[in-house]
Amino acid sequence: MVLLCFKEMKKLAFILVLLTALKSKGQSSADSAMVAAVYNHVLTQSEAYEDLRFLCKKVGHRLAGSESADQAILWGERTLKKIGADKVFLMPVEVPQWRRGKAEEASYRYRTDNMGLECFPSLVALGGSVGSTSAIEAQIIEVKSLEELAQLGREKIAGKIVFFNKGLDPMLINTGAAYGGGYPIRGKGPSEAAKYGAVACLIRSLTLADDDYAHTGGTQYDENLPKIPAAALSAKASRELSSALKLDSLLKFRLHLHCQAMERRTQYNVIAEWRGSEHPETYITIGGHLDSWDIGEGAHDDGAGIVQSIQVLRTLKAIGYQPKCTIRIVLFINEEFGNDGGETYAKVCKKEGLVHRAALESDGGGFTPRGFMNEMSDAQFERLMTWKPLLEPYGLHLFRRGGSGVDIRPLQDNKIALFGLSVDTQRYFDYHHSGNDVFEQVNKRELELGAAAMASLIYLVDMYGFE
Amino acid sequence: MVLLCFKEMKKLAFILVLLTALKSKGQSSADSAMVAAVYNHVLTQSEAYEDLRFLCKKVGHRLAGSESADQAILWGERTLKKIGADKVFLMPVEVPQWRRGKAEEASYRYRTDNMGLECFPSLVALGGSVGSTSAIEAQIIEVKSLEELAQLGREKIAGKIVFFNKGLDPMLINTGAAYGGGYPIRGKGPSEAAKYGAVACLIRSLTLADDDYAHTGGTQYDENLPKIPAAALSAKASRELSSALKLDSLLKFRLHLHCQAMERRTQYNVIAEWRGSEHPETYITIGGHLDSWDIGEGAHDDGAGIVQSIQVLRTLKAIGYQPKCTIRIVLFINEEFGNDGGETYAKVCKKEGLVHRAALESDGGGFTPRGFMNEMSDAQFERLMTWKPLLEPYGLHLFRRGGSGVDIRPLQDNKIALFGLSVDTQRYFDYHHSGNDVFEQVNKRELELGAAAMASLIYLVDMYGFE
Repeated sequence: MVLLCFKEMKKLAFILVLLTALKSKGQSSADSAMVAAVYNHVLTQSEAYEDLRFLCKKVGHRLAGSESADQAILWGERTLKKIGADKVFLMPVEVPQWRRGKAEEASYRYRTDNMGLECFPSLVALGGSVGSTSAIEAQIIEVKSLEELAQLGREKIAGKIVFFNKGLDPMLINTGAAYGGGYPIRGKGPSEAAKYGAVACLIRSLTLADDDYAHTGGTQYDENLPKIPAAALSAKASRELSSALKLDSLLKFRLHLHCQAMERRTQYNVIAEWRGSEHPETYITIGGHLDSWDIGEGAHDDGAGIVQSIQVLRTLKAIGYQPKCTIRIVLFINEEFGNDGGETYAKVCKKEGLVHRAALESDGGGFTPRGFMNEMSDAQFERLMTWKPLLEPYGLHLFRRGGSGVDIRPLQDNKIALFGLSVDTQRYFDYHHSGNDVFEQVNKRELELGAAAMASLIYLVDMYGFE
Repeated sequence: MVLLCFKEMKKLAFILVLLTALKSKGQSSADSAMVAAVYNHVLTQSEAYEDLRFLCKKVGHRLAGSESADQAILWGERTLKKIGADKVFLMPVEVPQWRRGKAEEASYRYRTDNMGLECFPSLVALGGSVGSTSAIEAQIIEVKSLEELAQLGREKIAGKIVFFNKGLDPMLINTGAAYGGGYPIRGKGPSEAAKYGAVACLIRSLTLADDDYAHTGGTQYDENLPKIPAAALSAKASRELSSALKLDSLLKFRLHLHCQAMERRTQYNVIAEWRGSEHPETYITIGGHLDSWDIGEGAHDDGAGIVQSIQVLRTLKAIGYQPKCTIRIVLFINEEFGNDGGETYAKVCKKEGLVHRAALESDGGGFTPRGFMNEMSDAQFERLMTWKPLLEPYGLHLFRRGGSGVDIRPLQDNKIALFGLSVDTQRYFDYHHSGNDVFEQVNKRELELGAAAMASLIYLVDMYGFE
């Protein structure tokens, strides 16, 4: 690409910004200047990317209940103190403990192969899976859905390993919707298989990428059914196993998982408070979740949301803003495995009678921001729309009603405005919950644009509110 | 990120698609079905990503005039024949030949350093630069702009190496606009420096990334001025050299470039034709540029556009579409270094009296598509807007007037509608013209969404036109 089109694009961009500015008579030029100052600070002086590097490379993955999550909590506390919050404190949260133990052992062998040639598929235990007391060896039965499983029934399932081999729907342009479609198999599949006498359960990883990364994630056992070991195969391993089954439907699969649940223990939400100057009794909460799965580095999920939330405070302070309301940055613990951090935070806030004006979460990865999901009244939405002209020049064009964020959702009442940073979703499920969710997969500028979008929205919410 | 928000997003996505479908009464459900069929084919059966892998890994970079560009032309011809075009032919194009020769030699040494410690900055010659007959050793003078250079004048410049150390403007959210702002220094900087007696010229690479990749790109000498060697330093090397100059403004820089221009030679635009069934005398051209710079693999610039264009033909054939107009896929040669392919194509079309309805180029990298730039009459734009409801559910929301594409631009007359695929621009200049523009930096799904967007638009343009 060379000059010709860019010169014009620049001219066009300038005109568009100008037109947008003229159109938005409702907003003062001071607001435009504040948003510009926010973006200028973040895009030239943000420390979010270096924070993320530290969190990913020095702390690493940080499953709730683990020692590395303890390290992450210490890091979060120290970092929030360094940027000059009025108060930084820890809120105790009871979290589950689950350990993967030593690496999963899995292999299969064709029945007719007397040479003993084994295949070792790429596989990880699902979060919360029980271990196998000894290696399980059984035939595989491949199904595409929970419905197909039910149709086959106990006769075809009992004593076998159920293999749910169903890819995400690539036609759903919002990949989050595709993930939502695949989620029930991971969540319920193992117990549904156990219902018909299966001895273990394998699923194809919930990803749109065709590679050899296996993606974990929580599974939820039905307490009234036997708990069987459950694991996810990479997309490539799923394809290969399916081909192998076409050659030899009676091949033997061997699986040994060393994971186990342990007692619940106490960890902490890390909270920074920046006291409001006009309405200190009114709160705005901004956050992401500090915990991650125990493979990869939790870079997009949700290291990105953590360092962006911290950057919001850093930037608003740096440009000299004085908040009217009390602003809280909350690094939630254990979103992935029961949402204990979010539930506890909402309970404590309710108990203390805290009034929230708004909450904002970033948990869709550090990708180019597109706008904000929102859960709020129609009147609040109308107010939000008056700010759109200030945000649109920065590529924030999507203001969809719907799911804001898992951690902040328990705060919902009939007053609070809930926001979720909405980002480009195309690459997220290539990395999500896998060994590929590492620092190197996060682009500095995309991450920063998200932080700037969040800080800009928070400025408007704090400045004008919804009354 | 877990289930809660995704379930709702899916519901929401469904409702949005439904609403959009209902709103667009002007368009038939057959059109929606065709666009869906296009996306379904590309997202499940596209070969674009594997084509790109081959082009990047087996052919590699392919500077116009080089032997690897010959290989790329052969590959393009073979690939277009394989997918069953009615006719594939080569159109001769005269292109320049310029060779980098052996690797650039560059170092500097502090005046006070008797130990002989040298620093070796990451640096590449600019495309078209003259070589240095022997190593140049001179002081550096650092400037921020062409204006500052002019103010310093001959007295301060003569005998020195001019170092333009100016980063791109991060505040321009469209990074193409930021690149446009930096472009004059690369294009004119060396000759402007020569005007005041400089012996060589260094520029900071035109990138927003802060790393050690140096980015090349064409420079244009003023034929009335001495031609001096010109090279780009990586962002990191620029920062380090600037710091070094603050310590010792008289440090000696040593530069030896081995590049040289050679005679022009003949290469080829590769053209595939799919004969129209109703208006075979009316043409629609789709393309990208086959050449790249001679470092990296030209993956985003513009391997992506090439494989997407080929995929458009493959997909429209696969879903059983019969075009009304004659559709041409054109792999243009030498966009980067004089636009010979585009200029020649337009001249030949004019000479042969070909009537074009439209042309579409992809040359912004294989990133998530956002819409289409367009250069056309107001009436044509109104027609385009009637198609928007069909495209918006696929994330295509930007339909901006302006620069379509360098290769197709010479086709412009008072009838043709020119389109450029508009993509997310945030990562493009991290890779552009550098050793980092490699296959691994292209995301399969993002690349495919671009191909599907292009095929969908071409279907609508061919089906309905602008009359």
